[in-house]
Amino acid sequence: MTADPTTQPIERFAAVIPAGGVGSRLWPLSRPDRPKFLLDLLGEGRSLLQATYDRLAPLAETVLVVTGQPHAEAVAGQLPQLGAEAVLAEPSPRDSMAAIALAAAVLEHRHGPMLMGSFAADHVIPDTAAFQATVRAAAAAAREGAVVTLGITPTGPSSAFGYIEAGDAVTGDDAGARRVRAFTEKPDARTAAQFLAQGGYYWNAGMFVMGTDVLLGHLARLQPPLEAGVREIAAAWDTPERETVLARVWPTLTKIAIDHAIAEPVAAVGGVAVVPAAFDWHDVGDFDSLAGLLTPGEDGGIVVDRVATTVFDGADGSMVVGGLRPVAIVGVPGIVVVDTDQALLITHRDSAQRVKEAAAAVDTARNVTKP
Amino acid sequence: MTADPTTQPIERFAAVIPAGGVGSRLWPLSRPDRPKFLLDLLGEGRSLLQATYDRLAPLAETVLVVTGQPHAEAVAGQLPQLGAEAVLAEPSPRDSMAAIALAAAVLEHRHGPMLMGSFAADHVIPDTAAFQATVRAAAAAAREGAVVTLGITPTGPSSAFGYIEAGDAVTGDDAGARRVRAFTEKPDARTAAQFLAQGGYYWNAGMFVMGTDVLLGHLARLQPPLEAGVREIAAAWDTPERETVLARVWPTLTKIAIDHAIAEPVAAVGGVAVVPAAFDWHDVGDFDSLAGLLTPGEDGGIVVDRVATTVFDGADGSMVVGGLRPVAIVGVPGIVVVDTDQALLITHRDSAQRVKEAAAAVDTARNVTKP
Repeated sequence: MTADPTTQPIERFAAVIPAGGVGSRLWPLSRPDRPKFLLDLLGEGRSLLQATYDRLAPLAETVLVVTGQPHAEAVAGQLPQLGAEAVLAEPSPRDSMAAIALAAAVLEHRHGPMLMGSFAADHVIPDTAAFQATVRAAAAAAREGAVVTLGITPTGPSSAFGYIEAGDAVTGDDAGARRVRAFTEKPDARTAAQFLAQGGYYWNAGMFVMGTDVLLGHLARLQPPLEAGVREIAAAWDTPERETVLARVWPTLTKIAIDHAIAEPVAAVGGVAVVPAAFDWHDVGDFDSLAGLLTPGEDGGIVVDRVATTVFDGADGSMVVGGLRPVAIVGVPGIVVVDTDQALLITHRDSAQRVKEAAAAVDTARNVTKP
Repeated sequence: MTADPTTQPIERFAAVIPAGGVGSRLWPLSRPDRPKFLLDLLGEGRSLLQATYDRLAPLAETVLVVTGQPHAEAVAGQLPQLGAEAVLAEPSPRDSMAAIALAAAVLEHRHGPMLMGSFAADHVIPDTAAFQATVRAAAAAAREGAVVTLGITPTGPSSAFGYIEAGDAVTGDDAGARRVRAFTEKPDARTAAQFLAQGGYYWNAGMFVMGTDVLLGHLARLQPPLEAGVREIAAAWDTPERETVLARVWPTLTKIAIDHAIAEPVAAVGGVAVVPAAFDWHDVGDFDSLAGLLTPGEDGGIVVDRVATTVFDGADGSMVVGGLRPVAIVGVPGIVVVDTDQALLITHRDSAQRVKEAAAAVDTARNVTKP
């Protein structure tokens, strides 16, 4: 009897979950001390981090979470099934390339070269089976030596995401992988509309699958000090020297995003492939996108994380998040109310992208008025 | 040397302040246990009741406040200069005629016939001198035997107030008093606009000046049981029989507003005069009207009764009332946020009239879910 390959872990595959980013546009629900990935935004009983783990664990022989030291304890608390060695705590944030490269180097030092997939801890992907099938396809393509990204089929001309421009099909690949011609920065709305009209463009959700040796090989060529740095840290990671080496080397690592360090330059020489994702994907970047994921009640309103009474009167599409007291919303459709013990936010779903600046203004004022 | 008549109390004049009404459209700031008249809505350091007293005290030889028993203690606490005998506590609300007639009967029983003026405890009148001059003019007209009302010059075609239709000047009166042809109920906007175009219409703010004997005389003719009832209660008020008589008679008093009991029928026979008021007047009936009385800051926002940080970003004309936490309002101009320990209200200034219904809905839900 042969094991069903669609329910077995992918051979020599490690899932890496970079758990970083505050989610500033979800303030005051998310805050530096309570980042978005630790929150159960959809009220499903699992945080975004936990849901990410749940999707990946069946696929992977090993799982690593890379997070900031201030959150390492909370991450370990939410994922007790992970051993202490599976949470890599960064002494300070040095952007996504350092985090992912550290994971690659630690994996390779511990296990020799493996396939790895990197998936942010704060995305929402409702269809786990479709996600897993796409990751399997990406892993198959990555085994041939490519850096493989998962391309999200755009649902509209969003200017909130970078785009992946797909070219020809990868020879010999039967999972639909295509060469990546280029990664583009977040376009303006007009350019985004052109992309959609033209076809062959995908949203870049920052999901990459590749061999650790492939990744570190590209890095050795493109960012040699960064590659050398993470190799040195990885060699010391499981030894008593870890803290000493981290303290010396980590602050010197180049701060750069994986898109700029690897994806763009490797795509330029034909080394990146894209596997179109056959699943819905949401980055839940702001309260409008959160509201869009939830179902309004008969009164037209959406409540999140609330027990107290909420009255919606002429408030269709309005959303109230949190809070212990009764709330009444009268004559203001599409409003967002976030009631936490730290602060109260009132915004409109159309203005949800602007919350970050207000959060900063509140924090500034708080610091200014501190006795 | 003769005393300046404009700084002396009006001879044999009593000020009566009916302190009733919750102010339901100012929920959750005002609530049954914390009615509008007890609140310092404008942040001036005096409640509306106290400000009403301050305006009237220099004019009156005596001041009476008529309020519900649940608020008698709070009223006495806010006005310690009043003796215990100056607060008339109603066992239950029986509308404005019973309250004012009781005051008239108590005044007359204690002092013999006097002039009295009745002024609600929850209005805002910024210009005290102009108010006092108008009351003096009304008192002079009332001394001739009329029921005199103060007519507010409309600032727009409001359909939130009843209107007073003025007729000919009162013969021999040099303060501008005119006969009242009729009181009208709150008109629709079109009718209100016609009134303004036509001229000679005033807002009815429920301010009446008249002799106690004139009032009780009209009442004896128009509402005989009510007149007999308040006379009987008044005779017992300053005796050990007060509670017994109140308990027996008060619940039998006709529930009727002074407008229907006195103003309309007496006007119909030519017995009511109106003195045009030469002062700004605000009933502050809802949060839009409160916001209109306050000056926005440089950020375009209005704050009331707050110390914590408030950030207004794209929120011109928005108002935040109360609350101990920082509040950020992003991209929603004209919004009203009322943050109390009992409930949180979000509405738009254009919808402020509808708050009452939402308040009722919250209370209903609260009672339904009570264990």
